[in-house]
Amino acid sequence: MKEIEYIDTKLNNFKIRYAQENDVSIILEFIKELASYEKLNDQVVATEDILKRSLFDRKVAEVLIGEYDCKPVCYAIFFYNFSTFTGKPGIYLEDIYVKPEYRNKGIGKIILTYIAKLATDRDCSRFEWACLDWNEPSINFYKSLGAVPMDEWTVYRLEGDSIKKLAEKF
Amino acid sequence: MKEIEYIDTKLNNFKIRYAQENDVSIILEFIKELASYEKLNDQVVATEDILKRSLFDRKVAEVLIGEYDCKPVCYAIFFYNFSTFTGKPGIYLEDIYVKPEYRNKGIGKIILTYIAKLATDRDCSRFEWACLDWNEPSINFYKSLGAVPMDEWTVYRLEGDSIKKLAEKF
Repeated sequence: MKEIEYIDTKLNNFKIRYAQENDVSIILEFIKELASYEKLNDQVVATEDILKRSLFDRKVAEVLIGEYDCKPVCYAIFFYNFSTFTGKPGIYLEDIYVKPEYRNKGIGKIILTYIAKLATDRDCSRFEWACLDWNEPSINFYKSLGAVPMDEWTVYRLEGDSIKKLAEKF
Repeated sequence: MKEIEYIDTKLNNFKIRYAQENDVSIILEFIKELASYEKLNDQVVATEDILKRSLFDRKVAEVLIGEYDCKPVCYAIFFYNFSTFTGKPGIYLEDIYVKPEYRNKGIGKIILTYIAKLATDRDCSRFEWACLDWNEPSINFYKSLGAVPMDEWTVYRLEGDSIKKLAEKF
């Protein structure tokens, strides 16, 4: 994996690179900022050690960092999902976040376009992500890229104690 | 990976095992039956070759098969997702299906309980799946297991040509 994936000379040398292990504190900072924007701060229990283990030891997801003016200003975290209907993997984007002061420059679109290209290069049949229903600016942006809302589906979740409670019945 | 994961002597020796490469035709048959139940038959474009490559060469998902009376009667397909808020992987259940004539025996619950146990054994923070909003029997069943609907989120999807169209802008 090359360190630098993309440089945009027209956008102040905006650079996309894969995160390395020593980026873990920046990643956690981004996660907390995004959670704060989503009004979900209380749900962040990740620590640098936990992220290090998941992202760099177990490698369960990939992380891109975007740099503007040589400063990290955005990140994206994604992993493979799988569609039985197409029989192929897809890319699921867990998080995308651009720092407020760097918005409206086209950075979010460059990152999403880059991941769409990864999806085609990697023979993925879908590129998906979830968005909060009140987040209208993001929803309009996603629709402008051609994304379609899966309105008829709802995700069901077991978490923490509710997983343990079910697991204990086995 | 052991071939047989579980035998239930009280349920006609109901057996759970990991699917092997030569199960690919059974898996495709199950996928088509589930799509038919979901009224989404036209969306199944997977073939045995495509599934073989994704599931057994690329290993992007794991498949469990349940056997009753020595016949395959159900399947479950799942993969790791990742939560930035917890910093840990989760298990995402793409498909679970029990043949109609084998329902109401507790088979679906055994499979879900088994995967919940896998989730705890593998240090996963969440166990999730999606359900169609009109599928009330399944929704009630999932809620009875403690699952919570993520009502405030919607998944957005790019697929096929819409991915290519976006990727070409890169």
